[in-house]
Amino acid sequence: MPEGSGLSSSEGRRAPSVTGRVFSILEAFDGDHRALTLTEIARAAGLPVSTAHRLVGELTSWGALERGPDGAYRVGLRLWEVGSLAPRSVGLRERAMPFLEDLYEAVRQNVQLAVRDGHEIVYVERLAHPEAVRVYSRVGGRWPLHPTAVGQVLLAHAPPVVQESVLAERLPAFTPRTVTDPAALRRVLAGVRRDGVAVCDGMIDLAALSVAAPVRGEDDAVVAALSVVVPSPSEGGGIEPRTLVPAVRAAARGISRALGAPTALRSDAVPRADGGGR
Amino acid sequence: MPEGSGLSSSEGRRAPSVTGRVFSILEAFDGDHRALTLTEIARAAGLPVSTAHRLVGELTSWGALERGPDGAYRVGLRLWEVGSLAPRSVGLRERAMPFLEDLYEAVRQNVQLAVRDGHEIVYVERLAHPEAVRVYSRVGGRWPLHPTAVGQVLLAHAPPVVQESVLAERLPAFTPRTVTDPAALRRVLAGVRRDGVAVCDGMIDLAALSVAAPVRGEDDAVVAALSVVVPSPSEGGGIEPRTLVPAVRAAARGISRALGAPTALRSDAVPRADGGGR
Repeated sequence: MPEGSGLSSSEGRRAPSVTGRVFSILEAFDGDHRALTLTEIARAAGLPVSTAHRLVGELTSWGALERGPDGAYRVGLRLWEVGSLAPRSVGLRERAMPFLEDLYEAVRQNVQLAVRDGHEIVYVERLAHPEAVRVYSRVGGRWPLHPTAVGQVLLAHAPPVVQESVLAERLPAFTPRTVTDPAALRRVLAGVRRDGVAVCDGMIDLAALSVAAPVRGEDDAVVAALSVVVPSPSEGGGIEPRTLVPAVRAAARGISRALGAPTALRSDAVPRADGGGR
Repeated sequence: MPEGSGLSSSEGRRAPSVTGRVFSILEAFDGDHRALTLTEIARAAGLPVSTAHRLVGELTSWGALERGPDGAYRVGLRLWEVGSLAPRSVGLRERAMPFLEDLYEAVRQNVQLAVRDGHEIVYVERLAHPEAVRVYSRVGGRWPLHPTAVGQVLLAHAPPVVQESVLAERLPAFTPRTVTDPAALRRVLAGVRRDGVAVCDGMIDLAALSVAAPVRGEDDAVVAALSVVVPSPSEGGGIEPRTLVPAVRAAARGISRALGAPTALRSDAVPRADGGGR
């Protein structure tokens, strides 16, 4: 939230606190930088090597970092253990897993579960069939909101201030089919709210189509999005996306029910066969 | 590694560093304490409330903690994201997942993947069938080595110094069947090394039996253990444990191959149908 909170030590906006220095060391690691030498950590964190050496030593003693036989440092198991306690990570995932499994069994493609953090999605689970269409997601990885079906679902249900802020940004195009025009994206989001589902065809990769539905929590707020990614029909994929919608919506409702979402618990939301209800 | 490194602030052995204080705040959270007030955090971390307030604020700004509408703090998604980069967590899990899925499909019970950290196992993945026998593991959760099949596999292949250290401890009994005698455990570990598999019947819960096999990494060292947990036959379970051994060993070998373990890559280890080879 707070911009310029002194956590980014390399920009010199403010003298970083020790905590800020520790975070800048952790931030040196990402999906493309999983093993770093002390010098590389110091450079990425914008710290003198002596300071980095001391802090890396403390991080390693606790288990937040681990030093391999090659002398390089990697993120340690202990940090992941603590992170696993995050309600929006493993907790969400554990409740969702049976439904993800069922959906995976039914479609034998990619099944993904994501949450929103700021202007990005973070994948908390991904089940990928070995022969499924290739996806670029990674558990713990981030991706923009506008070109993915899970992102569109999460953006459509984000607070208005978040939506307006995203719509005011320059939205990068990943393929010629990525929706980047704010007015067009606004219409897409309205459609997602109306239909309860988002469909993205070829917006990140022309070969892939994703279908996503919202997952609701205790207070019925949208807390996550569930998607299936299949080969795009426009590229000769064999699956008609419309046929996936009921399965994705049903699985998302099942997860919502497991999370205690009131609307997913109400059986009177389902019209009776005898024409009762409304 | 270093005992008394000043990371435990509540014992007053040494003035804790800021990093040590941050770790003591993170350690206030565990599987039974997922949401804490500031006062609870300060008490658990052994810090004055004013110090805790400042550090919790910094942790929350970065995303290591998140404050809910109830005012309580929880572990934040950002910490899990960084932790997901740990090679022994999500990295291992992602490579193992297709094999875990196959095993889960084959047995429709519990499938678990664990690594050793010190004298404990840490579960990095768990697939549980809704109707499977109840297990007490949790992804990111810890458990002792001696009463679990994965623990026995990991202990059997741990450095001798670790083995001797565990054998010298008082080993708690969870059921009358838990192996707690050092000499008996030593024989069990020798059997695990000889057979390439561990079988634990009713050692944590009389109703459950687990079968585990070692997963090897690039240098053929054992880096993880894979297990299946089924109802115990002695409690009327329907599965003969011996029938699970080939499936568990095959899946563990598959994961080892995915990790680049030399012995799992050698096809000459498999006798030919024409009687060639050894």
